[in-house]
Amino acid sequence: MENRKYLLNCWYGLGWATEIDDGQLLSRKILGRNLIAFRDAEGRPAALRDRCPHRMAPLSRGVLRDGVVQCQYHGLCFDGAGRCVENPLGPLPERARVESFAVVERDKMLWIWPGDAALADPDQIPDYSFQNHDGVDGDWVVFGYTHVEADYQLETDNLLDLSHTEFLHAGSFGGRGFIQNGEFQLRDFGNEIHSNWWMPDIPFIDPKTRTPTGKRLDHFLDMRWNAPSNMRLHVSFLPQGVHADRKDTKRDDLPGQFSAHIITPEDDGSCHYFWSANKPTGAGPFVGGLDKDAGLALFKLAFEVEDKPMIEAVEANMESDFWGEEPVILPNDAGGIRARRRLAKLIRDEQAAAGGKEAQADKQRLAQPAE
Amino acid sequence: MENRKYLLNCWYGLGWATEIDDGQLLSRKILGRNLIAFRDAEGRPAALRDRCPHRMAPLSRGVLRDGVVQCQYHGLCFDGAGRCVENPLGPLPERARVESFAVVERDKMLWIWPGDAALADPDQIPDYSFQNHDGVDGDWVVFGYTHVEADYQLETDNLLDLSHTEFLHAGSFGGRGFIQNGEFQLRDFGNEIHSNWWMPDIPFIDPKTRTPTGKRLDHFLDMRWNAPSNMRLHVSFLPQGVHADRKDTKRDDLPGQFSAHIITPEDDGSCHYFWSANKPTGAGPFVGGLDKDAGLALFKLAFEVEDKPMIEAVEANMESDFWGEEPVILPNDAGGIRARRRLAKLIRDEQAAAGGKEAQADKQRLAQPAE
Amino acid sequence: MENRKYLLNCWYGLGWATEIDDGQLLSRKILGRNLIAFRDAEGRPAALRDRCPHRMAPLSRGVLRDGVVQCQYHGLCFDGAGRCVENPLGPLPERARVESFAVVERDKMLWIWPGDAALADPDQIPDYSFQNHDGVDGDWVVFGYTHVEADYQLETDNLLDLSHTEFLHAGSFGGRGFIQNGEFQLRDFGNEIHSNWWMPDIPFIDPKTRTPTGKRLDHFLDMRWNAPSNMRLHVSFLPQGVHADRKDTKRDDLPGQFSAHIITPEDDGSCHYFWSANKPTGAGPFVGGLDKDAGLALFKLAFEVEDKPMIEAVEANMESDFWGEEPVILPNDAGGIRARRRLAKLIRDEQAAAGGKEAQADKQRLAQPAE
Ligand code: FES
Ligand code: FES
Ligand code: FES
Repeated sequence: MENRKYLLNCWYGLGWATEIDDGQLLSRKILGRNLIAFRDAEGRPAALRDRCPHRMAPLSRGVLRDGVVQCQYHGLCFDGAGRCVENPLGPLPERARVESFAVVERDKMLWIWPGDAALADPDQIPDYSFQNHDGVDGDWVVFGYTHVEADYQLETDNLLDLSHTEFLHAGSFGGRGFIQNGEFQLRDFGNEIHSNWWMPDIPFIDPKTRTPTGKRLDHFLDMRWNAPSNMRLHVSFLPQGVHADRKDTKRDDLPGQFSAHIITPEDDGSCHYFWSANKPTGAGPFVGGLDKDAGLALFKLAFEVEDKPMIEAVEANMESDFWGEEPVILPNDAGGIRARRRLAKLIRDEQAAAGGKEAQADKQRLAQPAE
Repeated sequence: MENRKYLLNCWYGLGWATEIDDGQLLSRKILGRNLIAFRDAEGRPAALRDRCPHRMAPLSRGVLRDGVVQCQYHGLCFDGAGRCVENPLGPLPERARVESFAVVERDKMLWIWPGDAALADPDQIPDYSFQNHDGVDGDWVVFGYTHVEADYQLETDNLLDLSHTEFLHAGSFGGRGFIQNGEFQLRDFGNEIHSNWWMPDIPFIDPKTRTPTGKRLDHFLDMRWNAPSNMRLHVSFLPQGVHADRKDTKRDDLPGQFSAHIITPEDDGSCHYFWSANKPTGAGPFVGGLDKDAGLALFKLAFEVEDKPMIEAVEANMESDFWGEEPVILPNDAGGIRARRRLAKLIRDEQAAAGGKEAQADKQRLAQPAE
Repeated sequence: MENRKYLLNCWYGLGWATEIDDGQLLSRKILGRNLIAFRDAEGRPAALRDRCPHRMAPLSRGVLRDGVVQCQYHGLCFDGAGRCVENPLGPLPERARVESFAVVERDKMLWIWPGDAALADPDQIPDYSFQNHDGVDGDWVVFGYTHVEADYQLETDNLLDLSHTEFLHAGSFGGRGFIQNGEFQLRDFGNEIHSNWWMPDIPFIDPKTRTPTGKRLDHFLDMRWNAPSNMRLHVSFLPQGVHADRKDTKRDDLPGQFSAHIITPEDDGSCHYFWSANKPTGAGPFVGGLDKDAGLALFKLAFEVEDKPMIEAVEANMESDFWGEEPVILPNDAGGIRARRRLAKLIRDEQAAAGGKEAQADKQRLAQPAE
């Protein structure tokens, strides 16, 4: 892909693995490009540009048969690597090849590397292994998808500043006055940034009746961001005081609920939001109170009814790019701002490296004897 | 506001005063900017840019409480002057201020001055005092609003050339052949222009049956334009001959019907049309024939069903700006053309003055000793 | 018309002649310009720009009376030549003239010459005389219109490569495996190109049951293209072997079915598709099997349900112009590619000639004595 606005040598969520089961041909635009995804003859996920090289027909209008896509316009057939493997009307055309991308299936998600496939390193895919436990040992996982008409970084901003929970999610997660008394914790691990809240000794409010139970809890929200825009949240309510020593350490092993927030740019001003959440464990308002259906409904309410219209309204309200708007920066913006700056640097570095390679190629070409 | 296409130091209609009664938060785009209007803690009308300075959330998605608007994204609160008066999550942010505008409530209308508030002079608001008589002494006034997908000056053109009444309003006001025999009168008072028709000795046609009654009337249409685009029409039917001496003088004191035609640009190619009309007095087709409901229905028919589609079709039909279309100018275009030229000059003068101030500021800056 | 993207001195289909019968005012955009067509006082077809020269109102919102169009805004009246013939409000305005175009009615179609009317030569209109036989001697002709949101040359491409019949029209004309064994024949007559397929000795498959009858047929598809984008198809099924000598000669006289495919650009990225077809004669699957209603339904299915979405998807999938997409060219693309190149040359030549004339005019102007 040529688009220089986006980081290319990194993993983006392309879709849920189930979207290409049962011989389905998935059509999705990411980073401004129309793609298709499907399982090849060996069942491996494949991603191609959604464009037949003959007359530009979308291959997503084609037919998938035994892991091979046939263009419905004049019948050319392509495999998972984008090679033309059949021409019903004559010899195989030499140049007929569809652009293909590195795709990996992991933790129920299809991950795509839009840049140089030779650099695609599956070890860089962030961990979402909690997603593998749906139906295992009484656990459940809910999966969802929300299309958002806003720049993907506005979704990241939203997720890295959970203080909005109190106001925007007054009808779902928030409105109970916890976060105002919390401590914000920023942890920077380079391409991974944690934007956490530690809220000890809060009243245990019954989530159904919204009345205090008289008990006290320790509460935290740990949001992990991996470049470019893949997040995982760990929400926990613990018996008060028992885990007080975990205030400043990694808390992944503590009970709670994980949720995925995987954001992929669709195009300028729109993005895909893949989300999931598992069954909560531990203490507090979650446990026992939330079955799978209720969990799914709660997340849908929060992301589609509460977040989405606000984020889209912000997008519509912007007259220039983010910095051109001269936003007032508050202390709890630290995570979002850090992530924006990190990503901007990664994109700059990638472009500089690409420019360097091009310059080197030019130099080599000039060094050749003239023909 | 920075937009140099519009006259800024002048009054525009922002909305009917009733639109912000009962704690309502009015959201409206004018001159290309999204604004909100509301009553502050003292009940005074206020207008702010519809954009939280934190993360650009529209304040129109917020909550108005006791004259203070709370942003629904992360909870910052702003008063009618745009000052941040509360931050639930920490200290008041220094730079958090929303752009505010001078607003005056007069004659049931909210008037906004988008330019330099120090220059805002309420005495320049044109008189629409007839609008204050709804329900007074048996009078009534109807109020309406029509959104038009056309440049605001095309609405002005429409109103300043009432010869279109005969054709476009054949189903409401026109189609009776009066205006063809009228005398067009242009009166130029600078930023106020009158585009009038004097039609003496016309047959008194019954408006319901559309048949002549045998009686004769004197008729006039007096349209007053105030820059940039605020109009008032005075329509009168008088007993024939009684007021013949008023052909060439101001006729505001004569019986008839006043109507308001207040046009405010929304954005390129769209505008707001605020209109009203009072109960007719005097002689002729109006009197006795038109109750309040019928009056409202007639104006709606004329402005929404007859005018609006035609004006929007003209907008859609334009391939360049007005003068670029090289329109054929007819004698009855005199009012519209005069108003267009006047407004263009006011905008040019305002921009030249702004340019002069900027140049002076540059000069002073250069005169400072270097740091 | 000034638009230099299109060939101007040539004939385009503007509409079916029936579209202006019964005093109808036809409104249609072609080559990026809004036009109206109607019959003048003598019943002759006329085409004007859909724009009153007074205040740019669309004349299509006007009223046609006795071959004269009255603008519904302020009442100016125009004849078929675009002359202002009445002004109800004063003298005839000198400059009020609507741009008019040469129009010819032939073979049930209105043909328009958007360029220099002095060059308009009706002899250059391609023959569609089969369209005159509806209801004559037991023949029938069906007529249709399809709006396509795609560049007109993508429609031409579609029609000049009928190999797509096998795949895209599997539900209507194709899917029987004939064309894979056919011989493609390109014939180039300059501004007329034939893109033909000769398919001898194919099985006679019953079109209703889709099972072989045991008989054999000779089959051909002769597609004639005339610049810029007017096509006629001749489809024939013949008793096998009887006409074997006609493989390499013109075959217009043989039995079969003619269909019209007249494409007119509407604007960038959209076009009008006027189509018709007559009652098939001769041998094979057509004859006896297809009445008029079924014929119309079959063509609608093929052009609106099968072709249109694919061609529009190709349009939406293009990121640059046709050559910028670097399409893979297959042998059966020969007709479409030849037509694209021919049309491009005609446009270039026309523009060069126009440039030459302008240069000459400049020269003459410069040669005048200074005033
Ligand atoms: S466009 Fe795909 S085969 Fe022709
Ligand atoms: S955007 Fe308004 S408080 Fe954050
Ligand atoms: S716009 Fe046609 S007569 Fe005025």
